[in-house]
Amino acid sequence: MKKFKLSLPEDRYFGPDPRQKKIARRLYDRVAHLPLVCPHGHVDPRLFADPNYTFGTPAEMVIMPDHYAFRMLYSQGIPLEKLGIPRADGGAVEPDHRKIWQTFAENFFLFRGTPTGMWLAHELYSVFGIREKLAAESGQRIYDQIAAKLKSAEFRPRRLFEKFNIEVLCTTDAATDPLPHHQAIRASGWKGRILPTFRPDGVVNLNMAGWKKNIDDLSEVSGIEVRNYRSYIQALENRRAFFKAQGAAATDHAATVPYTAELSSAAADTILKRAFQGKATPEDAVRFTGHMIMENARMSIEDGLVMQFHSGSYRNHNAAIYQRFGLDKGCDIPVRAEYTENLKPLLNKYGNDARLTLILFTLDESTYARELAPLAGHYPALKVGPPWWFHDSLNGIMRYREQTAETAGIYNTAGFNDDTRAFASIPARHDLWRRVDANWIAGLVVRGVVDMSDAEEMIQDTAYRLVKQVYKL
Amino acid sequence: MKKFKLSLPEDRYFGPDPRQKKIARRLYDRVAHLPLVCPHGHVDPRLFADPNYTFGTPAEMVIMPDHYAFRMLYSQGIPLEKLGIPRADGGAVEPDHRKIWQTFAENFFLFRGTPTGMWLAHELYSVFGIREKLAAESGQRIYDQIAAKLKSAEFRPRRLFEKFNIEVLCTTDAATDPLPHHQAIRASGWKGRILPTFRPDGVVNLNMAGWKKNIDDLSEVSGIEVRNYRSYIQALENRRAFFKAQGAAATDHAATVPYTAELSSAAADTILKRAFQGKATPEDAVRFTGHMIMENARMSIEDGLVMQFHSGSYRNHNAAIYQRFGLDKGCDIPVRAEYTENLKPLLNKYGNDARLTLILFTLDESTYARELAPLAGHYPALKVGPPWWFHDSLNGIMRYREQTAETAGIYNTAGFNDDTRAFASIPARHDLWRRVDANWIAGLVVRGVVDMSDAEEMIQDTAYRLVKQVYKL
Amino acid sequence: MKKFKLSLPEDRYFGPDPRQKKIARRLYDRVAHLPLVCPHGHVDPRLFADPNYTFGTPAEMVIMPDHYAFRMLYSQGIPLEKLGIPRADGGAVEPDHRKIWQTFAENFFLFRGTPTGMWLAHELYSVFGIREKLAAESGQRIYDQIAAKLKSAEFRPRRLFEKFNIEVLCTTDAATDPLPHHQAIRASGWKGRILPTFRPDGVVNLNMAGWKKNIDDLSEVSGIEVRNYRSYIQALENRRAFFKAQGAAATDHAATVPYTAELSSAAADTILKRAFQGKATPEDAVRFTGHMIMENARMSIEDGLVMQFHSGSYRNHNAAIYQRFGLDKGCDIPVRAEYTENLKPLLNKYGNDARLTLILFTLDESTYARELAPLAGHYPALKVGPPWWFHDSLNGIMRYREQTAETAGIYNTAGFNDDTRAFASIPARHDLWRRVDANWIAGLVVRGVVDMSDAEEMIQDTAYRLVKQVYKL
Repeated sequence: MKKFKLSLPEDRYFGPDPRQKKIARRLYDRVAHLPLVCPHGHVDPRLFADPNYTFGTPAEMVIMPDHYAFRMLYSQGIPLEKLGIPRADGGAVEPDHRKIWQTFAENFFLFRGTPTGMWLAHELYSVFGIREKLAAESGQRIYDQIAAKLKSAEFRPRRLFEKFNIEVLCTTDAATDPLPHHQAIRASGWKGRILPTFRPDGVVNLNMAGWKKNIDDLSEVSGIEVRNYRSYIQALENRRAFFKAQGAAATDHAATVPYTAELSSAAADTILKRAFQGKATPEDAVRFTGHMIMENARMSIEDGLVMQFHSGSYRNHNAAIYQRFGLDKGCDIPVRAEYTENLKPLLNKYGNDARLTLILFTLDESTYARELAPLAGHYPALKVGPPWWFHDSLNGIMRYREQTAETAGIYNTAGFNDDTRAFASIPARHDLWRRVDANWIAGLVVRGVVDMSDAEEMIQDTAYRLVKQVYKL
Repeated sequence: MKKFKLSLPEDRYFGPDPRQKKIARRLYDRVAHLPLVCPHGHVDPRLFADPNYTFGTPAEMVIMPDHYAFRMLYSQGIPLEKLGIPRADGGAVEPDHRKIWQTFAENFFLFRGTPTGMWLAHELYSVFGIREKLAAESGQRIYDQIAAKLKSAEFRPRRLFEKFNIEVLCTTDAATDPLPHHQAIRASGWKGRILPTFRPDGVVNLNMAGWKKNIDDLSEVSGIEVRNYRSYIQALENRRAFFKAQGAAATDHAATVPYTAELSSAAADTILKRAFQGKATPEDAVRFTGHMIMENARMSIEDGLVMQFHSGSYRNHNAAIYQRFGLDKGCDIPVRAEYTENLKPLLNKYGNDARLTLILFTLDESTYARELAPLAGHYPALKVGPPWWFHDSLNGIMRYREQTAETAGIYNTAGFNDDTRAFASIPARHDLWRRVDANWIAGLVVRGVVDMSDAEEMIQDTAYRLVKQVYKL
Repeated sequence: MKKFKLSLPEDRYFGPDPRQKKIARRLYDRVAHLPLVCPHGHVDPRLFADPNYTFGTPAEMVIMPDHYAFRMLYSQGIPLEKLGIPRADGGAVEPDHRKIWQTFAENFFLFRGTPTGMWLAHELYSVFGIREKLAAESGQRIYDQIAAKLKSAEFRPRRLFEKFNIEVLCTTDAATDPLPHHQAIRASGWKGRILPTFRPDGVVNLNMAGWKKNIDDLSEVSGIEVRNYRSYIQALENRRAFFKAQGAAATDHAATVPYTAELSSAAADTILKRAFQGKATPEDAVRFTGHMIMENARMSIEDGLVMQFHSGSYRNHNAAIYQRFGLDKGCDIPVRAEYTENLKPLLNKYGNDARLTLILFTLDESTYARELAPLAGHYPALKVGPPWWFHDSLNGIMRYREQTAETAGIYNTAGFNDDTRAFASIPARHDLWRRVDANWIAGLVVRGVVDMSDAEEMIQDTAYRLVKQVYKL
């Protein structure tokens, strides 16, 4: 029955060289139990606002909210309906969560060698105490085990938050969000630190669905009627102040291309007014976003919020899936990126100002050694964020270190963030990061690049200290 | 004399860690003797049509048909004439094959650390029983040994095909090819499975030399007079049906850029008519090819032929060599590729249809993790083909696995193909693939990513099962 | 106190596998003491012209001339003024070199895992005999030790040159430089071989600051009044002849993009005349440079000077730093590169001519396997230069070998050059290269790719023979 046994080797992801493995283990042991700092992610704050929130069925917890999980099954021809993914038109999808789980179990072999496979193994083993591999034969037994756990008080989000040893968890929230859940959490007296993050994409990206509605919402929540560029900026500054008062440490910005260039206020005003009339062109949208990235850098210098910039994802590439199921269904695909020229306006204006912290995330690894590490190894304002999305993986983290550390050093990087919607995967993701970094640093020790004393500082820096320092948490 | 001994270590390409090496060996042993499935390559079917076909001299078998071999000598200033490569104008080249072989032997050190060096070592050792390294001093002795073997009945192509344990070998054939050799092979009663592959580039790429002649040939072989877009499509469908009846499993398409976009029939007709008049522009050619890639996807959905798409090679980069010696002389050079935007029209129209199997090949490794793995990890129709051309190598295969497996999984890849013109190199190429994959999977085992039971499934999948399944062989 | 001990492990950068490490050590030992051949770098020839030249303070030797060193501190918010970097306007900077050194010492941990950290450890340990790690606590003691050494006759540049076992050192010199220091060195009777390199960028790149002044200088030093394209070419040929007579082995050319295309003499003349009038457009500059790259290839075929081409650096990206401190202050940032199409005109005209040696340097590693190795593995004139700038590092060299050797072989590469301004770092840089190559080749041995006899040839080739052969030194 060994074939079906789920194991989680104590020295997984280390090695293979025995001496490197031993040192990696020693380094990992120094940081394995440090608290988890989560400065960027997509966990719903609602989970913590209601002390009695429950995760639902195993399928509702593990499969349905996680596009990493269901995209792989979709790629093999399994319709999303069969996995219970809700349709935009409210049409019928598989209602039987045991059946959904069974489909997942039967296809779990697809995740061999993938980060999702590694995270889920960790989650099943450590969070749910599962000891057999997920497969067709074991699917229903494992469903029963998880379902039983999810019913217990131990598995309420607040209890898991404490059990996971999370020091702080930042959510990502629209600029127009009144943050009721964050307020409810604070009002409840619960000690868990759940902070909002200011994400203005919905009111910045003129070509985003619902932009005009978002502007109306912005007027309402800010109490500033947005009718021109001046009031638009005022409203945004108002919201940043509100988020900051609610504990926000950072902002987050997205664009397909990391283009930056300043417009005159008059030019920005003209574009904005075209947008109000529904007449903004695609080029307007690009120019306006490029300008607003710069404006937000200015605001960050003024209010101290750390600025995150995620670029390079072509959103909703698969039109049929987008129409049928909506956003975030596993069909965002990376595109090539260019930073040296695109960021020059921003960096020339604000990059020498140490009051700004700008953290860059990329989906184009070819820019690590070529552009991001050289830029971050020079401009005081710039840090390279951890490997993002598809690259948050065993090999992805190794490539990141090998391609950024020599030019940027580790001290121009920003520690780790889990970026997840799947709350229960948080410990697995941080553990993977800490293990891979421990192994990477151990590799430097066995090759005589750093000594053990430096290595012990480095692992504490990359596992815990840097992220707190860079995000000012 | 150890210095001159040719050896082929039993555990080559594994390791270096002893535990990983041991597991790799165990995995490799499970698949080392499985039959070879060859779904894509450029072996001439003539070899098998005539039961008495002989390979000629050692130079004719090993050097002259293999641009991987002679390009390296050319790069060091040795004229192709000196290697017996036939000139387009029929002018004189070195006639003495012993001399050609000697030049090759004297320069064989150039292949240290290269896949050609590895394949030739395997071929010389295993196919020809050579036990000394190819060098100036040993050149003539080795020539004698090979020449003697090539004269024996054991070294007829059909006998080698059986000895190599080839289960199926697919050739690549122009859409206008009447496939006489494939028909002769079947008529002969010989059991070897040699299948044609439908390659319509010569009638699709309007700017290809000889396009008009190819269209005339298309009219003739199809019996459909091609005079407009409608009859053009009919003729192509006729040829696909013919190829399918002759056993074809797949089609193959080439373009410098993987551009796809649909034209109206009227627009396609206009371009085609300009081409008939010799007035097609370069832009016409790009647009027409981009449209025909989509049309062939439609046809594949209808007739079930697997679709292969090879893009990113700048053909005949060296004009002087092209004029003097013609195609395929080692001067095709890769260019940067972009898939996310280029393939969107095709994938949006046909990518969700599981009846389509579209296998992508790239020469731009920076797209593995950035574009190809994310696309193949989402669209049901898409598979990532094995490392192509320069990247079919020890390091190239490692990079491919490390950069695609985490996001696409191995089950969205298409196994191996040898893509070779050099028939005798087939076992060496498949063996290298199986060894590197065994070592890669062993690396996952020693790092605790997969267990041994999964590893044993995986190696059988990547070495044998997947290629049969994806190509429906 | 072990925590503070500086060590330099004898088998550093090898391994970690013990068998690979042992073979790497054996290979390294064969070449560790071979003379250093330095065909490209930026050491000031003045150092050797005056036999009593001294390096000044430790800060003047180690920090202030080395943008690799001070850029990292700048990236962490330490102003360049605080590191004593001279301002363009002559304004005040930190005058106390002990204080500068202390700032450096306190921040030396930033270099953990970086090549600068490795080079400096080597330099401090081997050149200056330091035995404790540079840190806040040890800073002043180490300053004293270095300062004492720098005062001794042992530490004059000529003595270090001999102690370093440098066989030849090539400097990089403007086309208009009358080379007084090189002449003084030869006149002095000192045996050290210091050769100039012809770098015409200042008179070729029309948009470079000071171009017109440089043209006037060119007229003066050549004795040919440059007033049209014809006399411009004559003057350049005159200077090449002068450099060659002074011992130059090579030329060096820079461009942001490796664009090449020939202009008619009339078109070149028109552009040149526009430039004389200060009316050249940016496009003129690109076209003229692209043309002059081709012209210099022609001249190289005629006079035998080896041609080096460094492209892909966006110079002076940080306008504020450039204005305040000038060139070469750590704010040159790489950009994406494309060679296949850009170099086609040059390679089609001159690439088949074995009299030309064109060595390409890149900052875009994604071109190694995709473009540079395929090009160099075909065109007789082409060689791939060693990893440049940010990529001259432990991982950078490994990536270079793993991504070029399989397609280009090692015999289409050009050995090593240190490219440094920091004279005392030369032994460290060559030693790192030799170690990483020894380890790479040992990796081929343990995996059965090459045998020990080939490996011993290869390490001698890459450490010493190839660079002499390619640069004709």
